[in-house]
Amino acid sequence: MPRLDATASGVYVIAPTPFTEAGALDLASTDRMVDAYLAAGASGLTILGIMGEAPKLDAAEALAFTGQVLKRVAGRVPVVVGVSSPGFASMKALARGAMEAGAAGVMIAPPPGLRGDDAVVAYIAQAAEAVGDAPYVLQDYPQATGIFMSAEMIRRMAENPRLVMLKAEDNPGLDKLTALRRMTAEGRMRRIAILGGNGGQFLVEELQRGADGIMTGYAVPEMLDRVCRLVSAGDHAAAHDLFDLHLPLIRYELQPVLGLAVRKHVLARRGIIASAALRAPGPKLTPETRAEVDALYDRLAAREPVLTR
Amino acid sequence: MPRLDATASGVYVIAPTPFTEAGALDLASTDRMVDAYLAAGASGLTILGIMGEAPKLDAAEALAFTGQVLKRVAGRVPVVVGVSSPGFASMKALARGAMEAGAAGVMIAPPPGLRGDDAVVAYIAQAAEAVGDAPYVLQDYPQATGIFMSAEMIRRMAENPRLVMLKAEDNPGLDKLTALRRMTAEGRMRRIAILGGNGGQFLVEELQRGADGIMTGYAVPEMLDRVCRLVSAGDHAAAHDLFDLHLPLIRYELQPVLGLAVRKHVLARRGIIASAALRAPGPKLTPETRAEVDALYDRLAAREPVLTR
Amino acid sequence: MPRLDATASGVYVIAPTPFTEAGALDLASTDRMVDAYLAAGASGLTILGIMGEAPKLDAAEALAFTGQVLKRVAGRVPVVVGVSSPGFASMKALARGAMEAGAAGVMIAPPPGLRGDDAVVAYIAQAAEAVGDAPYVLQDYPQATGIFMSAEMIRRMAENPRLVMLKAEDNPGLDKLTALRRMTAEGRMRRIAILGGNGGQFLVEELQRGADGIMTGYAVPEMLDRVCRLVSAGDHAAAHDLFDLHLPLIRYELQPVLGLAVRKHVLARRGIIASAALRAPGPKLTPETRAEVDALYDRLAAREPVLTR
Amino acid sequence: MPRLDATASGVYVIAPTPFTEAGALDLASTDRMVDAYLAAGASGLTILGIMGEAPKLDAAEALAFTGQVLKRVAGRVPVVVGVSSPGFASMKALARGAMEAGAAGVMIAPPPGLRGDDAVVAYIAQAAEAVGDAPYVLQDYPQATGIFMSAEMIRRMAENPRLVMLKAEDNPGLDKLTALRRMTAEGRMRRIAILGGNGGQFLVEELQRGADGIMTGYAVPEMLDRVCRLVSAGDHAAAHDLFDLHLPLIRYELQPVLGLAVRKHVLARRGIIASAALRAPGPKLTPETRAEVDALYDRLAAREPVLTR
Repeated sequence: MPRLDATASGVYVIAPTPFTEAGALDLASTDRMVDAYLAAGASGLTILGIMGEAPKLDAAEALAFTGQVLKRVAGRVPVVVGVSSPGFASMKALARGAMEAGAAGVMIAPPPGLRGDDAVVAYIAQAAEAVGDAPYVLQDYPQATGIFMSAEMIRRMAENPRLVMLKAEDNPGLDKLTALRRMTAEGRMRRIAILGGNGGQFLVEELQRGADGIMTGYAVPEMLDRVCRLVSAGDHAAAHDLFDLHLPLIRYELQPVLGLAVRKHVLARRGIIASAALRAPGPKLTPETRAEVDALYDRLAAREPVLTR
Repeated sequence: MPRLDATASGVYVIAPTPFTEAGALDLASTDRMVDAYLAAGASGLTILGIMGEAPKLDAAEALAFTGQVLKRVAGRVPVVVGVSSPGFASMKALARGAMEAGAAGVMIAPPPGLRGDDAVVAYIAQAAEAVGDAPYVLQDYPQATGIFMSAEMIRRMAENPRLVMLKAEDNPGLDKLTALRRMTAEGRMRRIAILGGNGGQFLVEELQRGADGIMTGYAVPEMLDRVCRLVSAGDHAAAHDLFDLHLPLIRYELQPVLGLAVRKHVLARRGIIASAALRAPGPKLTPETRAEVDALYDRLAAREPVLTR
Repeated sequence: MPRLDATASGVYVIAPTPFTEAGALDLASTDRMVDAYLAAGASGLTILGIMGEAPKLDAAEALAFTGQVLKRVAGRVPVVVGVSSPGFASMKALARGAMEAGAAGVMIAPPPGLRGDDAVVAYIAQAAEAVGDAPYVLQDYPQATGIFMSAEMIRRMAENPRLVMLKAEDNPGLDKLTALRRMTAEGRMRRIAILGGNGGQFLVEELQRGADGIMTGYAVPEMLDRVCRLVSAGDHAAAHDLFDLHLPLIRYELQPVLGLAVRKHVLARRGIIASAALRAPGPKLTPETRAEVDALYDRLAAREPVLTR
Repeated sequence: MPRLDATASGVYVIAPTPFTEAGALDLASTDRMVDAYLAAGASGLTILGIMGEAPKLDAAEALAFTGQVLKRVAGRVPVVVGVSSPGFASMKALARGAMEAGAAGVMIAPPPGLRGDDAVVAYIAQAAEAVGDAPYVLQDYPQATGIFMSAEMIRRMAENPRLVMLKAEDNPGLDKLTALRRMTAEGRMRRIAILGGNGGQFLVEELQRGADGIMTGYAVPEMLDRVCRLVSAGDHAAAHDLFDLHLPLIRYELQPVLGLAVRKHVLARRGIIASAALRAPGPKLTPETRAEVDALYDRLAAREPVLTR
């Protein structure tokens, strides 16, 4: 199996965990979802992430879901597995299990409550130990963790060669991206892969600031890949045009609390997963909200040639 | 002077406080800003709001700025003055000062730290006492205050007839808007004015859910008024089209920390205020960020007939 | 096995999870700890609580530890098992496993992020479903959960007869305790068991306000039982005298971050557990801190006849 | 007037702001309070602190209160004035006003929301500019500000010679105190005065770790001074004995929300201030709570020769 390295780029789609209406793991939808993401141009997949429903899975389910995804992917693209955990013992077990099952790397975020820059850097060093020899993605997502990481802190953490990728979703975060790339250009920091995030809302700007791609779960990932290619090709105007078509739906998906339910509703409507259900406790969309999502999707589909459904 | 009442509607523009590069109040820019907002179709103005730089003004400056705005407005539209304050003594003084100077009403948000629904309702009842006989706007903005207000809590608070308007910017908040309007339709709640917020990002949906308009500081308020009119006229497709043109800039303005600086940059670029400076401590935009804002604005101006500059 | 009911009283000791220096479960220490708590007068035990290291155990370890405790207790006192969990599926599995293994009841706390009183009440109703027919303890601990529960909310939740006990550790919380007991005295609320908490720091006052005992992990639980008896006997002066002897150590144990490590240090020093180690990530006491704990303990032991060691 | 310098030591009493029952400034009580604090052995006073009711004063009241305190103190001890403020403009005005009125120095805490160590250090550098040439106290109080400051950060900030004192009330904070003193002993950090805080609950340990005294508002400051002297004299056992007598009341005063009301109740009962009233919004003690405070005070007074009342 390929291992993640610092040359990674493109779109890493964050996959939700599909459930049946009754709340069981839906492995048939899992296969269909993997196929859809690869068809949409995914360069990689990320599972069991911080915003998914990973904490609602028991250990056996997490293993079963990971196994199903990896089997279906069959080595075609790298799969990153989130292993954030309250203790290093369980992080170690998760990371080993994921790597043995064929994951390309793991993803780590610092937990809430660390006090001061040095405590964050030390935590990540310990986590790097815990995940054995796995390559890892550092997730910079202070909105969820409450932990700020400056460009300088990330530079220090990147001294570990197994830190191969940054998932950059601080907000505001564009100037940090520029600062990181500048340090690399000036020879002060090892070059690592940087993928944007934040639901995709700053995709074009992130790429222009030096990101190598994006890691997000936006329900129409076909766009993400095409925007990456347009920016690569220097066609920034076309990139903006395409991105802007999707922004109304992206914006709606970004609502706190409801976001994942909106995303699953679109995936279900597109026929990618069978049910939009979240495991309890979780929000259910009201009829009014479902109607708004549907209207946004219809509006998008009418203008976006990729979406013929 | 007109007093705010529950029939209010349209666009209430939240005005920033213009400063010179040296950090002094800029009263000439204040006049120009007032004129620009009224020309843009503002139905009202809001000053000294929760996201502005009101806490950086001393009492004399707050008074001078309020006076200048009210004088320039000269009764043409209602002006709402934010009076949130750590103590009721100062809230009382601020409210009296504002109303005597000609404000149409005041705006109140619950402070962080209130414990439980009843404590919030009780706080607002005490604040209503503190502001004397002024009509007041209740600001529902949990992202800043940490205080959640359910539709039922708002119904209870609206039993006070001086609560004439809700600034609805919970996120997610659209279903709450629907719930409030449903209670009124069913005769269980007095009808109050509801204006949306959240930087304008859900303008069309808010109007469709029953909002009477919006209160926000988006730097191109011309759009807000036109979208309100299009939705009123039932032309939802045109409303979406116009809104979507502006969404890329709205999104950029919504960035935490940087938002107000972005907004002032656009206002300065439009010639409405002389300087984009914030009072210290406050962020300064990097050259990269300024270039992005300019590019977004240029892109918008090329498609938006209102912006000939 | 006895099931917890609303007549419970006395001292429920919250047990830490003993580990070896290498981080493995220490089942021999577990037995010794159970014996020591029962010898100290515990009326019950609580395991896998919110402040312990439960999240650092994997599912098999949690089961093994629970089994060991229940086997050693052998029905002599009720054992309460914490089952708070991000999803109801895992809460259900944990509760069933615990009850089948012989637990007397389970303990539930609302998770962070619930919005408004009704959402909290609804969550607890759903959790009550998830734990099947198990009697449950409601943990009121806003310092950790961020969720406030008023006396009125607790009254509503107590309409479910399986809610048999409240672990009352809001701070300030004494007036809430009085309010709850008053509602019961006035016939407006079912009588439930109320145990105090907060590390024991308000033990005497809690009992005087109507608590039936206390649930805490203070490292010298012998005192807790004797104070409960003294207050029961009406000897408040003696209760205060005894309590005050322990307060300097209680206070030191209450330090955030370090508290559990201090507690384990005392338990290890008393020969109750073999190692004071916490699982990583977790604090290690500095030599200075260990010396302070030792000095406080020595000072206490010199005056407290129970501690001959 | 004496200026604060790094040789400061002893007890700096944090003074509340006395109000009449009607909520007006009570200047007669202010005088009596100043006299009582000086009689109790205060080496200095601190006013308009972070936990007081300073934000509930308008600018004129803050000035009047400061003036009254300074006039009554008449240069006998240094007076520190809190100048934390949302903007540097007002901080500057406050600091200038205080120093011109005769304050010995000002106190600054970093505001919530700063991101990363460097942002905190930069903020304090800007604040140091804003307060002109005033000596300043750095308040390290993360429980209120959410801002963590490591020993190394404090070392960096102490490179400014006008930073003459640290108010050390992180919790846990004792090891940080040791780390700071160690850096000074090793010649890596300028020696500054360090006073403990946290309501006095770690007074003896703070002194033993190298603090020069304490800055707190405990309602029986007579004890603080005597404990400082006992520790200075090497009589640690007597220091502990005296401290332990007071700990039950200190603990009760430490309750969130209620703390200041408890403190004012004791001061009123001691005849030091006329009314225990807080300005609205603020808690009122219930009869049950007042009775508990009175009982704790009576118990203390029966054993503490200083309190003959």
